[in-house]
Amino acid sequence: MSLHRSRFGSDTDDLMLRYCSSLAVDLQMLDQDIRGSMAHVRMLGEVAILTDAEVSALSGGLARVREEINEGTFRPGDEHEDIHMAIEARLTELLGELGGKLHTARSRNDQVATDVRLWLKAAIEQLDMAISEVIQALLDRVTREGKTLIPGYTHLQRGQPILLGHHLLAHAWALSRDRARLADAAGRIDSCPLGACAMAGTAFPIDRHRTAELLEFAAPIDNAMDAVAARDHEQEMASVCAISMTHLSRMAEELVIWSCSEFALVHIDDAYCTGSSIMPQKRNPDAAELVRGKTARVCGDLVTLLALVKAQPLAYNRDLQEDREALFDALGVTIDSHRIMAAMWRTLEIDTDRFENDLRGDFSLATELADHLASRGVPFREAHEIVGRIVKWCEQQGSDLSALTTDKATEFHPALADNLEGLLDPRAAAERRTSFGGTAWSEIERQAKTLRASLGDPPTDMPRSGA
Amino acid sequence: MSLHRSRFGSDTDDLMLRYCSSLAVDLQMLDQDIRGSMAHVRMLGEVAILTDAEVSALSGGLARVREEINEGTFRPGDEHEDIHMAIEARLTELLGELGGKLHTARSRNDQVATDVRLWLKAAIEQLDMAISEVIQALLDRVTREGKTLIPGYTHLQRGQPILLGHHLLAHAWALSRDRARLADAAGRIDSCPLGACAMAGTAFPIDRHRTAELLEFAAPIDNAMDAVAARDHEQEMASVCAISMTHLSRMAEELVIWSCSEFALVHIDDAYCTGSSIMPQKRNPDAAELVRGKTARVCGDLVTLLALVKAQPLAYNRDLQEDREALFDALGVTIDSHRIMAAMWRTLEIDTDRFENDLRGDFSLATELADHLASRGVPFREAHEIVGRIVKWCEQQGSDLSALTTDKATEFHPALADNLEGLLDPRAAAERRTSFGGTAWSEIERQAKTLRASLGDPPTDMPRSGA
Amino acid sequence: MSLHRSRFGSDTDDLMLRYCSSLAVDLQMLDQDIRGSMAHVRMLGEVAILTDAEVSALSGGLARVREEINEGTFRPGDEHEDIHMAIEARLTELLGELGGKLHTARSRNDQVATDVRLWLKAAIEQLDMAISEVIQALLDRVTREGKTLIPGYTHLQRGQPILLGHHLLAHAWALSRDRARLADAAGRIDSCPLGACAMAGTAFPIDRHRTAELLEFAAPIDNAMDAVAARDHEQEMASVCAISMTHLSRMAEELVIWSCSEFALVHIDDAYCTGSSIMPQKRNPDAAELVRGKTARVCGDLVTLLALVKAQPLAYNRDLQEDREALFDALGVTIDSHRIMAAMWRTLEIDTDRFENDLRGDFSLATELADHLASRGVPFREAHEIVGRIVKWCEQQGSDLSALTTDKATEFHPALADNLEGLLDPRAAAERRTSFGGTAWSEIERQAKTLRASLGDPPTDMPRSGA
Amino acid sequence: MSLHRSRFGSDTDDLMLRYCSSLAVDLQMLDQDIRGSMAHVRMLGEVAILTDAEVSALSGGLARVREEINEGTFRPGDEHEDIHMAIEARLTELLGELGGKLHTARSRNDQVATDVRLWLKAAIEQLDMAISEVIQALLDRVTREGKTLIPGYTHLQRGQPILLGHHLLAHAWALSRDRARLADAAGRIDSCPLGACAMAGTAFPIDRHRTAELLEFAAPIDNAMDAVAARDHEQEMASVCAISMTHLSRMAEELVIWSCSEFALVHIDDAYCTGSSIMPQKRNPDAAELVRGKTARVCGDLVTLLALVKAQPLAYNRDLQEDREALFDALGVTIDSHRIMAAMWRTLEIDTDRFENDLRGDFSLATELADHLASRGVPFREAHEIVGRIVKWCEQQGSDLSALTTDKATEFHPALADNLEGLLDPRAAAERRTSFGGTAWSEIERQAKTLRASLGDPPTDMPRSGA
Repeated sequence: MSLHRSRFGSDTDDLMLRYCSSLAVDLQMLDQDIRGSMAHVRMLGEVAILTDAEVSALSGGLARVREEINEGTFRPGDEHEDIHMAIEARLTELLGELGGKLHTARSRNDQVATDVRLWLKAAIEQLDMAISEVIQALLDRVTREGKTLIPGYTHLQRGQPILLGHHLLAHAWALSRDRARLADAAGRIDSCPLGACAMAGTAFPIDRHRTAELLEFAAPIDNAMDAVAARDHEQEMASVCAISMTHLSRMAEELVIWSCSEFALVHIDDAYCTGSSIMPQKRNPDAAELVRGKTARVCGDLVTLLALVKAQPLAYNRDLQEDREALFDALGVTIDSHRIMAAMWRTLEIDTDRFENDLRGDFSLATELADHLASRGVPFREAHEIVGRIVKWCEQQGSDLSALTTDKATEFHPALADNLEGLLDPRAAAERRTSFGGTAWSEIERQAKTLRASLGDPPTDMPRSGA
Repeated sequence: MSLHRSRFGSDTDDLMLRYCSSLAVDLQMLDQDIRGSMAHVRMLGEVAILTDAEVSALSGGLARVREEINEGTFRPGDEHEDIHMAIEARLTELLGELGGKLHTARSRNDQVATDVRLWLKAAIEQLDMAISEVIQALLDRVTREGKTLIPGYTHLQRGQPILLGHHLLAHAWALSRDRARLADAAGRIDSCPLGACAMAGTAFPIDRHRTAELLEFAAPIDNAMDAVAARDHEQEMASVCAISMTHLSRMAEELVIWSCSEFALVHIDDAYCTGSSIMPQKRNPDAAELVRGKTARVCGDLVTLLALVKAQPLAYNRDLQEDREALFDALGVTIDSHRIMAAMWRTLEIDTDRFENDLRGDFSLATELADHLASRGVPFREAHEIVGRIVKWCEQQGSDLSALTTDKATEFHPALADNLEGLLDPRAAAERRTSFGGTAWSEIERQAKTLRASLGDPPTDMPRSGA
Repeated sequence: MSLHRSRFGSDTDDLMLRYCSSLAVDLQMLDQDIRGSMAHVRMLGEVAILTDAEVSALSGGLARVREEINEGTFRPGDEHEDIHMAIEARLTELLGELGGKLHTARSRNDQVATDVRLWLKAAIEQLDMAISEVIQALLDRVTREGKTLIPGYTHLQRGQPILLGHHLLAHAWALSRDRARLADAAGRIDSCPLGACAMAGTAFPIDRHRTAELLEFAAPIDNAMDAVAARDHEQEMASVCAISMTHLSRMAEELVIWSCSEFALVHIDDAYCTGSSIMPQKRNPDAAELVRGKTARVCGDLVTLLALVKAQPLAYNRDLQEDREALFDALGVTIDSHRIMAAMWRTLEIDTDRFENDLRGDFSLATELADHLASRGVPFREAHEIVGRIVKWCEQQGSDLSALTTDKATEFHPALADNLEGLLDPRAAAERRTSFGGTAWSEIERQAKTLRASLGDPPTDMPRSGA
Repeated sequence: MSLHRSRFGSDTDDLMLRYCSSLAVDLQMLDQDIRGSMAHVRMLGEVAILTDAEVSALSGGLARVREEINEGTFRPGDEHEDIHMAIEARLTELLGELGGKLHTARSRNDQVATDVRLWLKAAIEQLDMAISEVIQALLDRVTREGKTLIPGYTHLQRGQPILLGHHLLAHAWALSRDRARLADAAGRIDSCPLGACAMAGTAFPIDRHRTAELLEFAAPIDNAMDAVAARDHEQEMASVCAISMTHLSRMAEELVIWSCSEFALVHIDDAYCTGSSIMPQKRNPDAAELVRGKTARVCGDLVTLLALVKAQPLAYNRDLQEDREALFDALGVTIDSHRIMAAMWRTLEIDTDRFENDLRGDFSLATELADHLASRGVPFREAHEIVGRIVKWCEQQGSDLSALTTDKATEFHPALADNLEGLLDPRAAAERRTSFGGTAWSEIERQAKTLRASLGDPPTDMPRSGA
């Protein structure tokens, strides 16, 4: 029976118990809840609201309940409504009426808010490590296969020849911003609601700075009503996750495309593929596809958290109980997805020769011709048009730019005779792009160094090579 | 070990197993999966691909696996990847190599698609019953307290006096459209994918019409690739759920508002309220709040299903595995929410006297005056302005329309002298609105009759009194 | 100045005007609004609330205002708040106080609700035509290039050889369900709110069946409160659009992939590509990409409409004004996207030879071997494993199934000697799949016939070849 | 005609022009685009790619085009595809072939990315000011009416008496976190993409640090591919907006509730209300309702931006063009909504006496009794149950806690006799809660001081009173 319904005439039925119960989700916060209660009890002792003996008995009792739940000898069920009630009920069985003193100067509102923040702090640490793992794996591939020549795609059409390292670092930079976002969100989560009580604070002479300190929060939250009503930190966390998942989904899409027969640039390790129940030859890039799919799910979680809070008056409303399932799911899925992605990158086989010859004479070198003309004083737009005509002519020959002899080139523009072979060498084309952030190997090395250094740091700020 | 990875060199690690596993969700489809397999086996026998003995052995084996899972003696774990593989693995343990024949002329793609549709057909039936329960509960309250006088609100401001029955029926009509939408969606789900195999059909001489018939589908799906790739029926179901939840959320919001101290129109039964851990007097409308909160969740589920399928090439991709958790959640939550809402309406106490006197002289009667003037030939806009001035004058007296004597009214417009008392009687005002669909009791009775009749019908079409 | 603020002391400032104005969106409903007012006026005349002369003057006035707006001689501005107020203001300028009679027995609530439904009815017709155009274009390609041999992909990996027609029809069936969904939604939109007034109906002796008839609605809406508060038909329409857009996005993704250099199966017409500002060779599949991108936008529109209505108490609240921008955007974008897609399909070049030789000996024929073994009594799972070993062996030879001689095949299983060449013929493999819905040409023809017939019909029900 | 389609055979049709055009949205970026081009030209001059004369001519030309567009003498149309092409086309008309040199070492990809970031930087400044305005307005009300006694609600049920200032500051703290989030996002936007070109950088010896400096960016973006492909900063901005809108929506909901007849705590100024077209007495809180409604819209915008980028391979794809409409809408709506909200708070009338007497003896004082018992050594749970029985008894008397005499109280527990009158004084109850963050006036003053100080600061970090 629910503990705080003494004036209620009838009891709720089974459907209602199930409908209202958050127990399955809350069990994930067991440690946080016990830890929060222990800090609360210790503080109550320090300000003399509880005696030392009471503190000692309550702390011991809490430790025992945690042990019983972990060992499965005490099983909270839907009749307990939530984890907090379950713990208190068991504590009262163990300690008698003393159990009832645990809730002095505290309500479930501030207790739950504290538990969730403690849970998030731990999850954030894991997520940061998981993102860093992917960055590390990318950096390692840059070191090993970064000079691989590939087409740089826009619109999935070949644009210009680039080095694979350039492409991989684009992903690494995106992830490093995810780390920065995560660190910023972490700062806003690092405040302690405990002691806010229902919403108005309390007349008991509690010390909220002390509980904040015991729970390793930077500070107590300034306003008791805000402490129990705010959910923007949860929305922000889900949003950090959703954004990071879209980054992963872009890589995942590329792994799916690059590993198909027609592209055949990479070979995903068997560990991250599965076969088909009917087609024996299949090596399906399941993990990469699931990363894409789970991106949709985390977007759904974020929508839940936004729509949930919209137009709720202050302070606490029961709607808010629905926050945790979406929030924990978003974090859990995002952490796992990064780990899977890191593992895929670490074990990926890359066919470094795939495009080496394929790009010789490829139309993706057309920009070289145009840029060359522009560097000889032809206005870029005119250069662009001249090269457009060259491309058309080559297509009409059923060929690519290989069809272009020096003589023929001269017909289109004399300046093309200068260094035609050099212009049509894809590797030279890539290495020529030495502008800051260009695809030249020197630029790749510079970036890799910056990123590698940032992995050691706490992610307090966005890494940047800067001015 | 996964059954169909014979050519794979290494095995997937634990994270990968967890990441890819859909087992927890799939267990909800155990019955559907066994049923689908039994129909498939029976058909294979009928077209002589299996012998009668094989059919009998496989059917018996399938029944036994189902029993073992239900009794907990066989527990599928993450090592099985999904429920289908788990069943087949156990079947092969029981029957030897014969178990391997189950998968003839079938792939997991069509099998899963079939299971989900069977699951949905059962869920749709339950949801239709649950929605009908709410409509029934509303109709019962219309019968009992439908003549209760309340303010009709727009913008949460009192607009015009209405009868409670008018308001309750507005909700009932909305729900009756949810039933119609559900029936339409059901029609599109009622096609059988089984036998589509991976995406191309099969060279085995199977009879897909027969399996469709055995599984009580209206017909087999016409195109094998469509059969395994389509998810629009799932998106549609989630959308039906999300729309219906927004209907429930509007009622829930009203129950929260109507039950607060300031409105005090209704009293939600204790069974659907909970108390506070800190404030002993609280009777919190938790169930109603959770209905609102879970509406956000179902919207999130729908977003997941839309974003999931966006830009996926045909046919099956593993991303699609993520569909079930969102889909089943949407259905489960929506069914439960309707049941809770029906129960709340059935047990609600309504204070039928709350507004009876409160509305006498209330400004919500202002339209009566304007309409009266318009009926005497004053252009409505002018009438509207005259009454606006009356309202302002009454406010200046610190009163409501009660301050208006016949003499004073005459000053504003002579025609107001006619029947001032009658115009300011709120119940008369409500009863005067006898236009089709108006708040007069006769109109409420007409609608209730139509709706009551529709509850008996299969929801093939939207109920409508019509022309 | 706003027309109905006579008792208000101060006027709203510019920001407020802009914030509240829906004029830009409402201008799209000009025709519907005038048409609704004309029907209302005519009915008021028929029930003798207006005289014939008044009816005639008001109708003439309304026609003139429409003309003035269309010709730009009268320009509604933000000072008019919405289109309805703008029209009435101009009407009153033209007709004097008679203009004020237009609003007898009507409020903006039912007026707007009517306008939106009229707008939707017209949009639905256009959308149905646009979807049908895409289906028609697909059917035409089936006729012309339907026998083209291509790999059937799952997970973007080659699965089994299929005919292009099979693939195109999978899309066509999906779109035919969109038409059915649209028709169902249309049925629920086909009810007239006019005469519901603010929410309670009216005491004026109006004839709502008559206005419904004049505006070609099936019937008036049964409940006046429901008539002004309901938005589920809008959510449903947005959901129909979002689902249909995900269908288009899947095609669009395929067109992007199929047209890249590596796949080179299709060539999108220049009219639907654009070039690059920097890379002269580029032919970017912009239209296809935009279809994908606009899918995200329509999903956003749907989220807006769901979150908008969540937890709003009845009846009308001003939040609801935000419905139109999202709704009209969803419809407009979806209609245009279908038209663009139809045009792309109509003008697409398909390289019918691209895969003809490429698939000979391809691993996507592995299922042929497994099925063959199964048909000779080898349990399918065992057959699956044998062929898995064959694939592995071929890979070790650096080859595909072409490496498999009859002798070598016999080593794996004697039954493979039977008809090895036939088994490895990709076209024969496709044609062998004659099961209902399989990729064989006969099945493609059957489906095309059903679909072609359905294009002539009103989309009252989902086309289906059925039992 | 599009400028860069020289090798294209046919021209796109009207639908295609409309479908692909982003001109309407892009016109908002006119200034940013010109400014970016001017910086680019100046840098090209400094590195001697252009001569001084060319720099001067191009800069002059750009200034003239801006002027022509602003004055309406040059009107970009859909035939220009986007603003960048329109400007270049006009520039070339003005300057001849020199205009074609503008695009040297630049592509539209990096140009657009730069424009959007410049636009965002300006918008962020405005949004920060708008949020600050609301905080300021709240702080002013705290100063003026902060001591007003009101019920603190949870679940919309009266919980405990609080001071209005406590409630208002809860909102102010939430908004101050929005400012911190905005500042963090701003930091990630403050990097310059210009010079990244299509995705690979350039062989021209450009100086990206210089253009970054000229455009007042902190630094150039490190990787050229990342520079054109990244959209996480846009998703983050939309998410900051969506979260801030949910904060506003909670205030808006309260304003709607507090201003209804039944609550009657506040009176929204006429400037932010509108009347009814039919009910002359109505004062509808339209602005507050629209804030709620527009919250849904901004959530939709965010969904668009997330779903848009999901699973897009690098680098630029045309889908991304759809980002701006959602992004600009989110920012614009959020800025306006804050301004409207600030104006509503500034002009709100608050009835400071509304609850002063109403709360005397109110059940919301029940916690006082329980806390008092707990302070006398009664375990809190037991105290909670005793007071639950008292509440029940009072309800049975048809009264509230006023029914409790000292004698009667003693029956429930002797310790209640101590100071019954003091316990039941609502203002004393509020003032007693002096714990950090409690509702006592001293705590309100402390917080207001911290918040007031933060308004002067740049929002580099979350304000916090701290340890």
